[in-house]
Amino acid sequence: MSKNLTSRAEDYSKWYNELVVKADLAENSAVRGCMVIKPYGYAIWEKMQAELDRMFKETGHQNAYFPLFVPKSLFEAEEKNAEGFAKECAIVTHYRLQSDPDKPGKLRVDPEAKLEEELIVRPTSEAIIWNTYKGWVQSYRDLPILINQWANVVRWEMRTRLFLRTAEFLWQEGHTAHETKDEAIAEALQMNNVYATFAENFMAIPVIQGVKTESERFAGAVETYCIEALMQDGKALQAGTSHFLGQNFAKAFDVKFANKEGKQDYVWATSWGVSTRLMGALIMTHSDDKGLVLPPNLAPIQVVIVPIYKSDEQLDAITKVANDIMSQLKQHGVSTKFDNRTTQRPGAKFAQYEMQGVPLRIAIGPKDLENKTVELARRDTLTKEIVALNGLPELVKGLMTEIQDALFNKALTFRNSHITQVHTFDEFKHILENKTGFVSAHWDGTAETEQKIKELTKATIRCIPLDEQNEAGECVFSGKPSQKRVLFAKAY
Amino acid sequence: MSKNLTSRAEDYSKWYNELVVKADLAENSAVRGCMVIKPYGYAIWEKMQAELDRMFKETGHQNAYFPLFVPKSLFEAEEKNAEGFAKECAIVTHYRLQSDPDKPGKLRVDPEAKLEEELIVRPTSEAIIWNTYKGWVQSYRDLPILINQWANVVRWEMRTRLFLRTAEFLWQEGHTAHETKDEAIAEALQMNNVYATFAENFMAIPVIQGVKTESERFAGAVETYCIEALMQDGKALQAGTSHFLGQNFAKAFDVKFANKEGKQDYVWATSWGVSTRLMGALIMTHSDDKGLVLPPNLAPIQVVIVPIYKSDEQLDAITKVANDIMSQLKQHGVSTKFDNRTTQRPGAKFAQYEMQGVPLRIAIGPKDLENKTVELARRDTLTKEIVALNGLPELVKGLMTEIQDALFNKALTFRNSHITQVHTFDEFKHILENKTGFVSAHWDGTAETEQKIKELTKATIRCIPLDEQNEAGECVFSGKPSQKRVLFAKAY
Ligand SMILES: [Zn+2]
Ligand SMILES: [Zn+2]
Repeated sequence: MSKNLTSRAEDYSKWYNELVVKADLAENSAVRGCMVIKPYGYAIWEKMQAELDRMFKETGHQNAYFPLFVPKSLFEAEEKNAEGFAKECAIVTHYRLQSDPDKPGKLRVDPEAKLEEELIVRPTSEAIIWNTYKGWVQSYRDLPILINQWANVVRWEMRTRLFLRTAEFLWQEGHTAHETKDEAIAEALQMNNVYATFAENFMAIPVIQGVKTESERFAGAVETYCIEALMQDGKALQAGTSHFLGQNFAKAFDVKFANKEGKQDYVWATSWGVSTRLMGALIMTHSDDKGLVLPPNLAPIQVVIVPIYKSDEQLDAITKVANDIMSQLKQHGVSTKFDNRTTQRPGAKFAQYEMQGVPLRIAIGPKDLENKTVELARRDTLTKEIVALNGLPELVKGLMTEIQDALFNKALTFRNSHITQVHTFDEFKHILENKTGFVSAHWDGTAETEQKIKELTKATIRCIPLDEQNEAGECVFSGKPSQKRVLFAKAY
Repeated sequence: MSKNLTSRAEDYSKWYNELVVKADLAENSAVRGCMVIKPYGYAIWEKMQAELDRMFKETGHQNAYFPLFVPKSLFEAEEKNAEGFAKECAIVTHYRLQSDPDKPGKLRVDPEAKLEEELIVRPTSEAIIWNTYKGWVQSYRDLPILINQWANVVRWEMRTRLFLRTAEFLWQEGHTAHETKDEAIAEALQMNNVYATFAENFMAIPVIQGVKTESERFAGAVETYCIEALMQDGKALQAGTSHFLGQNFAKAFDVKFANKEGKQDYVWATSWGVSTRLMGALIMTHSDDKGLVLPPNLAPIQVVIVPIYKSDEQLDAITKVANDIMSQLKQHGVSTKFDNRTTQRPGAKFAQYEMQGVPLRIAIGPKDLENKTVELARRDTLTKEIVALNGLPELVKGLMTEIQDALFNKALTFRNSHITQVHTFDEFKHILENKTGFVSAHWDGTAETEQKIKELTKATIRCIPLDEQNEAGECVFSGKPSQKRVLFAKAY
């Protein structure tokens, strides 16, 4: 913990990688591309899960669990989906090991235990779930099906980074089935909105809700909605997606229902997900050169109390005050830790909690005992002040809201100041390379132009914002007529 | 839902299989041996998870997450553990699919995308976790490590049954690291006790805490503690295990620490787990020929209100009363559902909630409106009574405790009456075949005798109870001297 982080200005990417490890969030494992999520990182993920789960249930969804494996014949049933994931999936071919006759004490795959049909480790669960839904749906009375699953998935990415892109990751995937197209679209939009609300209110990350272009769409979707966030280095990050799947999976798996008129029709579908990638977004939105900065709503420890003492008598006296503060804060719903380890000096503790992003630190020393005060230090602003013990719980409670809001507003100001309207392709390139952030530009709507811009600038169309107004203009690249601006950016 | 279950007396095994499906708990999937856990079944599992998670955290544990895959070289490092699981593991050998040149639109495994080292889908995580702990432990100051993981695991079982034995299942696995042998043994015993408390207080399942014989021990453990329950058909079910692993994994993965005297020593380990198998124990302990019976502490719906009406006006009036009851019950912490579906008759609803084990049903009809009463029906006793609306919430709240206790006591009476001390092997066989249950007998302590008894009777030693007193005797099979009775039973 003692060594400093590389600064963001020096090497943003290195800063991120170091921070994840030094803040004790995650580390690489012995399995290529797979991470170990450490207890402190997992505790943040658990807070995200709890709130998302609450929001899903509040909107009528239930959790369930479907198999980890997808038989190859089911995997390939929806062709576009299969194509999209075929190049990056882990495949189980055997079900037994045996002693290796050539190497005593070692094992080898038993060649006689080959599966008749290979199993794909799920990269996403549409195939296995829609094959199951087939047995659940006969009539409109069986609809809607509103199910979510918390699970691990595997995508064999070649270049991985902790949280942002890993071969195995944790996520939730909602899979819903509906009578009508309109109802399915409304569901997809509703869940995208749930993600936006969660990102803004809990993660303190401002996001833009939009729709993806065809080339950025989920494999097998008719429409992909998304929330896009902006990181401190001016690159965008897709923080969640919600897909209107049309009848693609219903047709691939023959899921029909008798509608209210008694006619057979294919079921309409959505799917939506967020993953441990959100941890990457959280880190890169708020953190600084001293380490992680956590919004109070997601902080496993909201307040830490550090005693500063020379004698055991002083520690005893401080402990009494600290216990008092803790029990009062608990009553106010603030989670507090009293770090009375004798193996660490206060300076080392300060550095650790700064690195780990604890929103508020309370230091209590002998002078504070005399004056009935404590020292408060805010992690987000790195400011300190001496305050009276009297009234402390209310003050701290208020600061939790204040810090949460301050983080959101800071990120919002940064984000808003990094959406730049451009009118020429020179301007486009200049903004992208120098100011960075989102570039708002007219686009002619063709995949060809999108592809060329990507090749020339590495920028992709992050989304067509849902609230974007129509505005006649000319494509920033081709000069052809355009009805709307879209948002380009380099992205994670 | 309408068809009756096969009765337990007719065919216990068929009764179980039908119940799991008809109560909407789980079903078989398209993947051999893997199940789909349906929303109602998953909601019960979530209640188990929440309480266990609370108990783990209360005893100082934190959650984390480790990779799904174990490289073969790590898997085989602890030899006994590897041997124990080698014959039943799913193996990933490739990481890419490609278009099948022989079958348009189909995919095949890309032969060029073969992994250099095969990956085992975790059947348990000791190997990957101890390989990780190696990097976390240098000195006694880094100990203990008290970590739990909620995860899916895969064991390629040949004969599977929903919840009881499935190729993939959900579980939690605790993995702890300690300075001393005594501390590790105390941890293993503590967690076994947590499981016992959970089983008895939440699942209303009486359990016997014991230690396994060497032949029934977890592969790689020095000692395996367990909780053993008795099902209604007189067969035992191992509901949870907690292992003292000695230094076996520390030695296999070279995890040493500098102790307080500055000497290098291997770390001491435990692991402990319970799984979705608990769902099978829950079902088979309490349920009857009408379907599932749930203890209130684990019931997703504790009370269901069913309206009985002929006219819309009656339904309106009943709805007002029902809403009133619901809000009062909510205040008393009782979860209630008002089933006002117009597509189902009351009789069908009654049958559904009986099948699904809702502990208490409240029916409200026109007469009840006049008399300010409701009809209460208990699922466990199948008794009904008319009670006054006045005082209903307190009555219901009290019934939740009463039903919880009644289920436990009923199961305890059954269990206690099915522990039979025997003195001869004839008696042993007679009891096992006719009375069934646990047979308490002297055993000479040899694996040979244990094996012969198993071959002759299909009974295994379920455990040596922790509270069993020493008592001189002669082995029921060999006649050799014995110091203690052990519990035999046929088991799931
Ligand atoms: Zn301009
Ligand atoms: Zn006898």
